[in-house]
Amino acid sequence: MQRVEAEIARLIQEIDYDEVTRLFSMLSGGKRLRAKLILKIAHEHEKAPLLAAIVELIHAASLLHDDVIDDAMTRRGVASVNATDGSKTAVMLGDILYSKGFTELVAFERDVAQTISASVTALSKGEMMDVIMAEEFNHDEEKYLDMLYLKTATLIEAAAKASALLVGKDADKHALYGRNLGLSFQIIDDILDITADEATLGKPAMNDYVEGKCTLPYIYLYEELNESDKERLISLHAKKITKEDTLWIKEMMEKHNSVAKSFVLAQKLSNEAQEVLKDDVELVDILETMIKRSY
Amino acid sequence: MQRVEAEIARLIQEIDYDEVTRLFSMLSGGKRLRAKLILKIAHEHEKAPLLAAIVELIHAASLLHDDVIDDAMTRRGVASVNATDGSKTAVMLGDILYSKGFTELVAFERDVAQTISASVTALSKGEMMDVIMAEEFNHDEEKYLDMLYLKTATLIEAAAKASALLVGKDADKHALYGRNLGLSFQIIDDILDITADEATLGKPAMNDYVEGKCTLPYIYLYEELNESDKERLISLHAKKITKEDTLWIKEMMEKHNSVAKSFVLAQKLSNEAQEVLKDDVELVDILETMIKRSY
Repeated sequence: MQRVEAEIARLIQEIDYDEVTRLFSMLSGGKRLRAKLILKIAHEHEKAPLLAAIVELIHAASLLHDDVIDDAMTRRGVASVNATDGSKTAVMLGDILYSKGFTELVAFERDVAQTISASVTALSKGEMMDVIMAEEFNHDEEKYLDMLYLKTATLIEAAAKASALLVGKDADKHALYGRNLGLSFQIIDDILDITADEATLGKPAMNDYVEGKCTLPYIYLYEELNESDKERLISLHAKKITKEDTLWIKEMMEKHNSVAKSFVLAQKLSNEAQEVLKDDVELVDILETMIKRSY
Repeated sequence: MQRVEAEIARLIQEIDYDEVTRLFSMLSGGKRLRAKLILKIAHEHEKAPLLAAIVELIHAASLLHDDVIDDAMTRRGVASVNATDGSKTAVMLGDILYSKGFTELVAFERDVAQTISASVTALSKGEMMDVIMAEEFNHDEEKYLDMLYLKTATLIEAAAKASALLVGKDADKHALYGRNLGLSFQIIDDILDITADEATLGKPAMNDYVEGKCTLPYIYLYEELNESDKERLISLHAKKITKEDTLWIKEMMEKHNSVAKSFVLAQKLSNEAQEVLKDDVELVDILETMIKRSY
């Protein structure tokens, strides 16, 4: 990972603008999940650290714009650029990082460059779907999963596929692994928004629903409720929520196993990913660590 | 140009999201200067319309984000996406168009793809410089021209260079042509902000200075003023301006030939561009039409 960090630093340096260097240094790098995945799959390839650095720049750009779109004031526990320097700066910095990432992609074979760049169109589209879907209560599971795939799984899928292409490993299997890892990761995240406490999350619990996001547990809960409870659930959508209503939702979810059902899907997706790459101990390990996050 | 419009429509269709199709249809296509340039330079190449479509998507994306950053409520005489659908939608739509453009670039030779994508990093950097420079009065001509080059000339330069590369014409000469066309175009635009009336501009005259933008005529004026007038000019920077102060600036600019000096630079840049490609009647014609815009 040191080589990835060095590549990231080099690319930022190449942008040759103090303000960008300063702003970028304030971002938390996060877990670097995508970079680690690329290194694990393509470690023997000399350009793997560069590909990992590119994907991390693109990911950072998407988070910057994500925070603008969600009015998020914090990111990974630190104040967002949005909060410290304003949403306009976050838009501009995101554009610079996106385009620097795309420019560097040109050094790769066409299939690798195409895989990564197409995933960015998908993720921007997913971001737009997410915002539009938050405008009203959605209880369509398939529609939700389509959006989730675009918004949060495509870049991980692309990272896994592109690094497989780089070293001649099975691209389809790695793509499926990445897709399912991304989806189950996000489903666990959605669960934690309901089950974890405010201190752990660094934000109010059940914040997703307040922001209009009908994640899987809400969709599964809706399916089980009677008409009047359905109405009550919908009436709480995208609003500040009282302690009483929070408790009611949690009780209902408990009663109808809504969180457990969501976890079952995350587990199923994770199992599929494990199955397809069962000989790769390290990749299986990533999945297991991720799934365990929920408890 | 019909083939370019068809390519643009095809790319938008491929994004496969009704909301994007709807929003994109509301944008005014503008003059399509970059596309026309590409067709004129590389008309015999079968991929010229695709390259032109890509550059227009990228340009549209940059304008969407530009309007977010400048809080612009109109663009090319119609309401901006910013105004009709909010800045978040404008950010998301811009991201989708940028990434679709980049994805399609992968179909081109490396030098072509590299030329276009690197120019987007430059233009995003220029956008950031423009915003930062507007925070205080700037009287440094070189610094201003550096920013102008990045923000408004690099994509035109890249369009001219990339299309020359496509058909084996002289890349350096076409790059210089594009660069100077872009710079002189913008200088004329900056002049018109001062000399044209509100009806022609579709926005209040001298709006640039109110927004904090110290364009060339202001820089040249500053150089000629005595200390107390310098102070007066600086005191008016980035503020709502009275009719009296507007008149004073115009009188001072008249007295010190500030607009004329700016026009001389635009003319000089345009002449350089004409000189380097003097045998290409169509390209020379573009420059002449552009320069005549000012009267």
